[in-house]
Amino acid sequence: MSLQQVFDEIDHTLDASLHRLCDFLRIQSISTDPAYRGECERAADWLVDELTSIGFSAGKRQTEGCPMVTGESSTTAPRILFYGHYDVQPVDPLDLWEQPPFEPRVETCPGGRVIRGRGASDDKGQLMTFVEACRAWKAVTGEVPENLRFLFEGEEECGSPSLVPFLQQNADRLSAETALICDTGLFDRNTPAIVTMLRGLLGEEVTVTGPDMDLHSGMYGGPAINPARVLARIISGLHDENNRITVPGFYDGIEELPAAVHRQWQGLDFDAADFLGQVGLSLPAGEKDRSALEMIWSRPTCEVNGLNSGYTGNGFKTVLPASASAKISFRLVLGQCPFTIRNSFRAYVKSMLPEDCSVAFADHGASPGCRFPTSHPICEAVQAALTEEWPNEAVFAGCGGSIPIAGHFKSILGIDSILTGFGNDDDCIHSPNEKYDVRSFRKGIRSWTRLLARLAG
Amino acid sequence: MSLQQVFDEIDHTLDASLHRLCDFLRIQSISTDPAYRGECERAADWLVDELTSIGFSAGKRQTEGCPMVTGESSTTAPRILFYGHYDVQPVDPLDLWEQPPFEPRVETCPGGRVIRGRGASDDKGQLMTFVEACRAWKAVTGEVPENLRFLFEGEEECGSPSLVPFLQQNADRLSAETALICDTGLFDRNTPAIVTMLRGLLGEEVTVTGPDMDLHSGMYGGPAINPARVLARIISGLHDENNRITVPGFYDGIEELPAAVHRQWQGLDFDAADFLGQVGLSLPAGEKDRSALEMIWSRPTCEVNGLNSGYTGNGFKTVLPASASAKISFRLVLGQCPFTIRNSFRAYVKSMLPEDCSVAFADHGASPGCRFPTSHPICEAVQAALTEEWPNEAVFAGCGGSIPIAGHFKSILGIDSILTGFGNDDDCIHSPNEKYDVRSFRKGIRSWTRLLARLAG
Repeated sequence: MSLQQVFDEIDHTLDASLHRLCDFLRIQSISTDPAYRGECERAADWLVDELTSIGFSAGKRQTEGCPMVTGESSTTAPRILFYGHYDVQPVDPLDLWEQPPFEPRVETCPGGRVIRGRGASDDKGQLMTFVEACRAWKAVTGEVPENLRFLFEGEEECGSPSLVPFLQQNADRLSAETALICDTGLFDRNTPAIVTMLRGLLGEEVTVTGPDMDLHSGMYGGPAINPARVLARIISGLHDENNRITVPGFYDGIEELPAAVHRQWQGLDFDAADFLGQVGLSLPAGEKDRSALEMIWSRPTCEVNGLNSGYTGNGFKTVLPASASAKISFRLVLGQCPFTIRNSFRAYVKSMLPEDCSVAFADHGASPGCRFPTSHPICEAVQAALTEEWPNEAVFAGCGGSIPIAGHFKSILGIDSILTGFGNDDDCIHSPNEKYDVRSFRKGIRSWTRLLARLAG
Repeated sequence: MSLQQVFDEIDHTLDASLHRLCDFLRIQSISTDPAYRGECERAADWLVDELTSIGFSAGKRQTEGCPMVTGESSTTAPRILFYGHYDVQPVDPLDLWEQPPFEPRVETCPGGRVIRGRGASDDKGQLMTFVEACRAWKAVTGEVPENLRFLFEGEEECGSPSLVPFLQQNADRLSAETALICDTGLFDRNTPAIVTMLRGLLGEEVTVTGPDMDLHSGMYGGPAINPARVLARIISGLHDENNRITVPGFYDGIEELPAAVHRQWQGLDFDAADFLGQVGLSLPAGEKDRSALEMIWSRPTCEVNGLNSGYTGNGFKTVLPASASAKISFRLVLGQCPFTIRNSFRAYVKSMLPEDCSVAFADHGASPGCRFPTSHPICEAVQAALTEEWPNEAVFAGCGGSIPIAGHFKSILGIDSILTGFGNDDDCIHSPNEKYDVRSFRKGIRSWTRLLARLAG
């Protein structure tokens, strides 16, 4: 067997592969809405059939919520646990879709052909790149690729409520040398990326209460404390004049970026003005003396996600509000302990409270930031396979968002993750008219084929 | 005629007076809800009949909204323009009423008899004290009291939209030496109050916008400016460490309280801890080195009345909001120009904006604070009449709220106002189970009788 034979097979059967993906995309597997629960079951069944048809042993595994799909080749030395998710985001606002979201089609656009429909990029199309690589491999070699395990989740878009108990109960059946999570994107159209840093997330809700009830601001304005003003002062004090976060001990434990990574990032074709220009901004507004990429990928942040107090309807009401609340989140990086920071944040808030005010906190999750080693042989194989397939060398990137799954694989299964994928920035994931480039689909399949060859070799 | 004869007439006919008031209270004159427009017309007609039955010439005057009622005694030298309003607040939440709000009744409570029903205190019962005084006067003397004019409004509870044009078009027919506005309360159960200071009101809505759309706080948190944080900093900067307002020039033009008034206030039976304790607070939180009464009555304030940004529903959403808005109001005192302060406030906000943020302002009204002289012969007569009738001497008080009508009388008719009334703090105005003490009603009628005698003398 030569790689070229498998590539030929991929191209000869690409229409059939796209046809299969469209079948998969027709299933309305919206996990967050219980009305679509039957569709999620259907998507899981569909995947079990796919894996089985290639020659993997596969099954649907019930949870408290949507089922998991697991599969494996017959092996006693699993090297890779491949992860994707079959559930998709809701489709509203429906009127902005140019076609029904669950009637996928392949279109020819100025930039090339695309598969359009909900889930095309996030994550059904990405997930299928790996499945299709295995199918082509089997067709050419007659053998199912060895040492693989699969985990396809159906609740990624609604916070993965069943994942942790499932991992805990099935650790043995899921263990592998490393996890391969295919749910991220290219760095740019020609540059594949392996995400090696993920920011964690600490979510806090702060409600400051003053008087027992909303007051008339004429009758009480002056002597009565105003919780909205107190909250504003608390929020205002969270950053200093250099936009550094003032919560005591906040930066403790953070290591500076390795010089090599820093150099690689400086070499990336990333223009902060372009990046911000797309959303109507022009200047990086984060920590002084940090690049925009560092601000997103390797530095922690504190953001206000919501504010609510008093009268917010049309017109005006001269109310002195009884309470004011804010949703505040911190993106965390490796070395920061979310629980220590939560305690320190809450102590800071309390220290800013005047007499006559009380505060209540609600906990909206706490996950640490993480970094994955790039020196693992499988990671090196992935990087080499990606670099061979794509015009530019694969880069090690950060990710400003939080992908808790990687953290759970580390803490429960004890394995690191390699996060990569072939999405583009204009894929409209979570938005109307989601699409996945056929180029991403084809080159994704080819990338995994190169990886399978390296692992087999 | 002796005063005692009129007092006897008042007591002999008190049941009939209460009966008339209950008839008036049965009319559902809710001005803010167009469904009750016919009831407002009915209330106006009822008042025209009342005034006419005493011997005044009276009429209903149409406006763009609810009609005005005007009336006068035949005179060429009007001394007093008496003002009250016949419209009432909505009645919701209806389930908290212990009786239907428009089925008034006289009840005996531990503190004495009360008239219970919507509008009993605000303002139908208060308005009728003056009408009943005139009726008793006429019954005893055979003459309608001279030199009086009446203006009864039907839109006070919905912002008086028709008042300014009506005053402008009818200035001649409404002019008098002074206005007497009967829509306020006693200082305490035994101490009548003449309000000589009203705070003005400047209402501003500030919307700070950063990015073009709500952003993912993982993908953009760090380099993208967060308008909620910017807004918090703007609000936080509005007060200094002594709780003084930092808007440049804000305190310009304010005169200190006359020493005599200051002394009178210090002598009042006002306990700040009690006042704040009723709403769950304990410490005056306003300007350093000012008493709580000064904070409410004679000092300007800046309050946040509403805050809104990002996600405010249940749970958490890691959105970086595109915009954040606040409703902010200033209570103003004599000497402060609302328009100068608006300009200065907006300039302050703009000075706090980082690059990449813009701001939009909405104007929610601007009225100046005012003080009325206490040396006018009619004001002296009112004070003397009140002092004679009530256990304690009438005091000159401030009012933290804003009564724009007094400002309009000054600016359009060129006359000062005397604001007084007989409401108690526990009257539940604007709330379920509104009531007016029969004691207030009777002593109010007697107070006005004493005033009529002084004016006639």
